[in-house]
Amino acid sequence: MPQSDRPRNADAYAQLGRKPFKRSKSHFADRITADGRDGWPVEPGRYRLVASRACPWASRALISRRLLGLEEALSLAVADPIQDDAGWRFTLDPGGRDPVLGIRHLREAYDAREKDYPGGVSVPAIVDVPSGRLVTNDYQRITLDLATEWTALHRPGAPDLYPEPLRAEIDEVMAGVYRDVNNGVYRAGFATGQAEYDEACRDVFRRLDLLSDRLAGRRYLVGDTLTEADIRLFTTLVRFDAVYHSHFKCNRFKLAEDPVLWSYAKDLYQTPGFGDTVDFHHIKQHYYRMHTGINPTKIVPLGPDLAGWLTPHHREELGGRPYGDGTPPGPVPEGEEVPASGRPESPPV
Amino acid sequence: MPQSDRPRNADAYAQLGRKPFKRSKSHFADRITADGRDGWPVEPGRYRLVASRACPWASRALISRRLLGLEEALSLAVADPIQDDAGWRFTLDPGGRDPVLGIRHLREAYDAREKDYPGGVSVPAIVDVPSGRLVTNDYQRITLDLATEWTALHRPGAPDLYPEPLRAEIDEVMAGVYRDVNNGVYRAGFATGQAEYDEACRDVFRRLDLLSDRLAGRRYLVGDTLTEADIRLFTTLVRFDAVYHSHFKCNRFKLAEDPVLWSYAKDLYQTPGFGDTVDFHHIKQHYYRMHTGINPTKIVPLGPDLAGWLTPHHREELGGRPYGDGTPPGPVPEGEEVPASGRPESPPV
Repeated sequence: MPQSDRPRNADAYAQLGRKPFKRSKSHFADRITADGRDGWPVEPGRYRLVASRACPWASRALISRRLLGLEEALSLAVADPIQDDAGWRFTLDPGGRDPVLGIRHLREAYDAREKDYPGGVSVPAIVDVPSGRLVTNDYQRITLDLATEWTALHRPGAPDLYPEPLRAEIDEVMAGVYRDVNNGVYRAGFATGQAEYDEACRDVFRRLDLLSDRLAGRRYLVGDTLTEADIRLFTTLVRFDAVYHSHFKCNRFKLAEDPVLWSYAKDLYQTPGFGDTVDFHHIKQHYYRMHTGINPTKIVPLGPDLAGWLTPHHREELGGRPYGDGTPPGPVPEGEEVPASGRPESPPV
Repeated sequence: MPQSDRPRNADAYAQLGRKPFKRSKSHFADRITADGRDGWPVEPGRYRLVASRACPWASRALISRRLLGLEEALSLAVADPIQDDAGWRFTLDPGGRDPVLGIRHLREAYDAREKDYPGGVSVPAIVDVPSGRLVTNDYQRITLDLATEWTALHRPGAPDLYPEPLRAEIDEVMAGVYRDVNNGVYRAGFATGQAEYDEACRDVFRRLDLLSDRLAGRRYLVGDTLTEADIRLFTTLVRFDAVYHSHFKCNRFKLAEDPVLWSYAKDLYQTPGFGDTVDFHHIKQHYYRMHTGINPTKIVPLGPDLAGWLTPHHREELGGRPYGDGTPPGPVPEGEEVPASGRPESPPV
């Protein structure tokens, strides 16, 4: 999660008074490419993706990695949804250390890259395993590179998530989704004044209305297959009713109250590679317990009832070819399954 | 609103740490009766009801007064939904004074009754106009007495809201509604620990499930007419999606997601005497701006979309005789209309 989502920063931000919420730019923007021009060539087994299942920005990479079948080539470290003063940590692992990198906190990989780096520590992050150094935390770029630079390591039947002929349209859709939805919910939730919140909340729902119209007659956002645009919209939608609706006050309606968006989100959730990366428990624990500036009691709501995520969506009636000429990904690798506590089957109340 | 809802008290409560939320008993429990046995005989024009349209406890009296046609006999002072350090105040009136009692704060009527009264100042309150003294703030008793002791002043065609043969059943239903719903949402919202919240939230929805079952085949809670039991359930339900769902974390589902309870609540809302007393603007302003312990930013959400309150409910298909052998109340008296800002027609986002 980019640094300004982090509680320490959110609190610091709240103390600033009325300065509007502004998302930090990623600090480390090296790219891992096929030709290795930044010094980081694509190589199987060399890098480790550090993610939190709580974080929508990191979850993009979790989904891309699954869809593209990069699980073996790019290993995964899942951070505890609850950060401590030093940030994202590996308390879910035995001994509190990531078993591959051997570190307790992601910050250590940042420090290995730049000693005493003063900025925030965010996920997604990709770390060079041999040196233990952070390569990139550029959440806007990482998934595009997984789709376009890591192709030699894609599984057979991997979909093209960023097809050349559709990039202009995908980029345009994603720009609106980023501004008003992905980041819009944060602008609403971390607003420090009524006017700032009002504007952000209106942006969120204006964009959701447009997206609902767009998706009423087509299964996916661009073309007739899954693309990066769907991944980016999904990671916000899947958190909407559980977190953004109440915690961030984006409450004109619940996702479950918009038939088109709700069916669209359920369709994706039920598509292999999407829902199997989602841990609702991590999501709720993170937001409600870390953002003490807007939830000082740290109490985590029991709801919403999540059973609806598993109900029929009927979107297949719209046609579409989820994986294009490709095929669905295989099962989730052993050890990466989302535990029962994070799945919608677990009764919330 | 009973004193423990007041922000000063809520904050004081929050500072106590983990002591569970406990609603204060009313302090002044004199009764205004037909026989005047407590020294306060029912008399037209003698008393003034002080209410806040934000407060569910006070709103019971607003509804009873309308249904029974007591508007002329018992005049009404509406307090500003935003309290100051001295509590409920008459800032909505010209010069910031109640035009009948001549006071700026309800506290003055409490002080006139008991000098330097140390407790909280709550609504509903009934004040003796000639002396300016508080008579009662007994929110559990006031509406029962309006229904049973003020009968000589009821309008022709007033319904019997507490019919003798059904009192045992009404009392039983109301006891469960009070514990788990009326007060349950407060226990959830003002919980200071996860376990306390979990228990309260489960109570809320366990009871709502029972009520939904009960109301699936019958139009009203007890008998086939409106009773006090419906009034008491309504005042919580009408606030549910606007406030309790998010602000108090009662979020297993929105009222609008339970077909039975949502239709029941809409039916009542659209029944003269109910919805015409409801000011959604007052409700939202009060809860979100006063409870800084759970909403430190004081930001008031734009949603939910309230338009659904005016949509068809189809509950008339269940039969029932809203006013029994009586008739609907007349129009809202001039000067008491809920302004456009508080009605569901006003677009929220």
